[in-house]
Amino acid sequence: MLPFEILAQDNNARAGKLFTPHGAIQTPSFIPVGTLGAVKSLSSDDLHRIGIQAIIANTYHLHLQPGEELIEEMGGLHRFMNWERPLISDSGGFQIFSLGVAKKHGVGKIASIFPNKNNSVRLNSNKTQPLIKVEEDSVEFISYLDGSKHRFTPERVIEIEKRLGADIILVLDECTSPLHDYAYTMEAMNRTHRWALRALNQFHKSTSQGQALLGIVQGGAYRDLREQSAVFIRDQGFDGFAIGGSLGKSKEDMHRVLEWTVPLLSQDKPRHLLGIGEIEDIFEVVKRGIDLFDCVFPTKMAHTGTLLTRKAKRFRMHIINSCFKDDPYPIENNCNCYTCSHYSRAYLRHLFLNKEPFAITLAAIHNLCFLESLMHQIRDAIKKGQLSELTKHWLTST
Amino acid sequence: MLPFEILAQDNNARAGKLFTPHGAIQTPSFIPVGTLGAVKSLSSDDLHRIGIQAIIANTYHLHLQPGEELIEEMGGLHRFMNWERPLISDSGGFQIFSLGVAKKHGVGKIASIFPNKNNSVRLNSNKTQPLIKVEEDSVEFISYLDGSKHRFTPERVIEIEKRLGADIILVLDECTSPLHDYAYTMEAMNRTHRWALRALNQFHKSTSQGQALLGIVQGGAYRDLREQSAVFIRDQGFDGFAIGGSLGKSKEDMHRVLEWTVPLLSQDKPRHLLGIGEIEDIFEVVKRGIDLFDCVFPTKMAHTGTLLTRKAKRFRMHIINSCFKDDPYPIENNCNCYTCSHYSRAYLRHLFLNKEPFAITLAAIHNLCFLESLMHQIRDAIKKGQLSELTKHWLTST
Repeated sequence: MLPFEILAQDNNARAGKLFTPHGAIQTPSFIPVGTLGAVKSLSSDDLHRIGIQAIIANTYHLHLQPGEELIEEMGGLHRFMNWERPLISDSGGFQIFSLGVAKKHGVGKIASIFPNKNNSVRLNSNKTQPLIKVEEDSVEFISYLDGSKHRFTPERVIEIEKRLGADIILVLDECTSPLHDYAYTMEAMNRTHRWALRALNQFHKSTSQGQALLGIVQGGAYRDLREQSAVFIRDQGFDGFAIGGSLGKSKEDMHRVLEWTVPLLSQDKPRHLLGIGEIEDIFEVVKRGIDLFDCVFPTKMAHTGTLLTRKAKRFRMHIINSCFKDDPYPIENNCNCYTCSHYSRAYLRHLFLNKEPFAITLAAIHNLCFLESLMHQIRDAIKKGQLSELTKHWLTST
Repeated sequence: MLPFEILAQDNNARAGKLFTPHGAIQTPSFIPVGTLGAVKSLSSDDLHRIGIQAIIANTYHLHLQPGEELIEEMGGLHRFMNWERPLISDSGGFQIFSLGVAKKHGVGKIASIFPNKNNSVRLNSNKTQPLIKVEEDSVEFISYLDGSKHRFTPERVIEIEKRLGADIILVLDECTSPLHDYAYTMEAMNRTHRWALRALNQFHKSTSQGQALLGIVQGGAYRDLREQSAVFIRDQGFDGFAIGGSLGKSKEDMHRVLEWTVPLLSQDKPRHLLGIGEIEDIFEVVKRGIDLFDCVFPTKMAHTGTLLTRKAKRFRMHIINSCFKDDPYPIENNCNCYTCSHYSRAYLRHLFLNKEPFAITLAAIHNLCFLESLMHQIRDAIKKGQLSELTKHWLTST
């Protein structure tokens, strides 16, 4: 159950309202990432003031620490992290395949896969140590925290997510990288589909307390696979859809993946694009019919003193640049955020130079507020049928 | 000008109200440290909500970064750091002598002094590089940031502090350590006295826009020197007094220093004890007539996950201890702070284990709130003549 009202349509872009047991989300919406049950450096009050509508947490990370048993015992993730608005939990498929062992062993987000003779697949950074093992039934992986072994099945991930209690939860999927060939991408997609059915079955076995389940479309950057996957996932009765995995090697590849996929999905259900959220991308994905997307981009930028502004190339101001040394103005003159209402660029530069932790909080507040304000403008523009004008206004004026 | 109303007296302890151009401070008051113009991890809104009445910043640090010219240009320190309540600026005497070069060269807070034949004093970590040079006229020191050379005279420090614009400013003093002998402590004290007169003279040369100037009592842990210094500083017409430098080698030494010093100071002016603020100390210093004190203790503790509570030894709860793993209660059940109103110990432990930066903010909010609430109780107790009962209640129940 995920009631979704489409309020307006502007070509393929839509403005809507998504209802969850913890309130509604105006779409299109940018969802900040709170991997471990906290958005980096910000309190729930900060997030409320910014106008953040929902947060996405991560099942893989929360399973490893502090564990779903503890969170359930503490009254669920909403209560645990003091967030009374909508919550999404990503399944952790992406993290198992790209972050977990790969990160630990320095093989990066894109790693080689060596299928073995048992038709199971091992991702290796060296020949002796199996780091991840995908089989039909499950995926086994080693915790990046302490090397302990873990096993996820599609059923188990649903059970973990039920215990966490987010409003919108995602199925376990196998993420492929742009380096995977057609054959392996197809094999992984088909496994993801079989897992999706098992997840759905498990989801319906017990009451979901108003939780909604999204299926995930895979298929890499291959048109026929993406189309197959979109149709397959569409037809299973999920409450909505996520588009995951490799979106190709360039922004253009990503746009094509959306153009192949989105039109095949049910028009009356929400679509979440996983892990995308730079300013330029936002216009492109909303235009192609995406309703929700999440990204660490604004909080990650904040950490390095990169502040979002209309006035800089790629919307990025590097506040420690010496040109801001004695700059008495706020990051953005017409921004109403707490940071811009009270602090100058000179002060922010001073805090960043001196590694004062409060600097990151101020930067994160501004960056999220900047995105929230952009999303507000986008929703308005869609309602007025003016998304292409707004896009031109934003993308040509910098 | 620093109007001070004593509202009640309980033996030597007093409850009062100190008036500054940016509002009043109820005393006794704990003043959080905002060395560089920011209290670690907290916004002005956080500090307002906690009920913080005033902040103490540091002239030495702010001179090195970002410099007093910039802060003046930005409208003064209040405006720069978005703090509209009372501000104190410490002179930086302590930092020059103990933090600056000493820290950089790893000699720690207590370092050996080698007087040279010119009767100037050099603090050396090795034989070749002079790190600090005290002469009658001035002190020369090397920035711990970039090795650049700086020279402070008592007059220059007053000028810097006028440009910063804090409500209460302190004279430049020479800080001695518990390792200094009687002869050197006396010599330094006499120099500090001569510097105090020069600072006062400079202070009166131009309008101070409502700023008040505190003299600093020195004299180490030597009774006759402390008494001499108290009488000397008392008689110069300062707006109030700070007690600085070495307070001896133990808590008992510190208590004795206060017992020798405080009764000699003018009863109608405020007394600030520099750099003290652990819970047990607070009762001891207030009892001996201290009105203001500052310390990094609560914010520094917050950084390491040490939370203040009535329920633990020395009032310190180490939140990452495994006993808090599934503890659903707030740090303190009867604490009204934002942290205790919304978050469990289990959540705080989870954030600290995962090095989430928001953990430090939550811990700092609680620790400052805990101290602010203690100070409120102390002021009330003094007004009711019940300080010794309150002290017993606090110090015997843990």
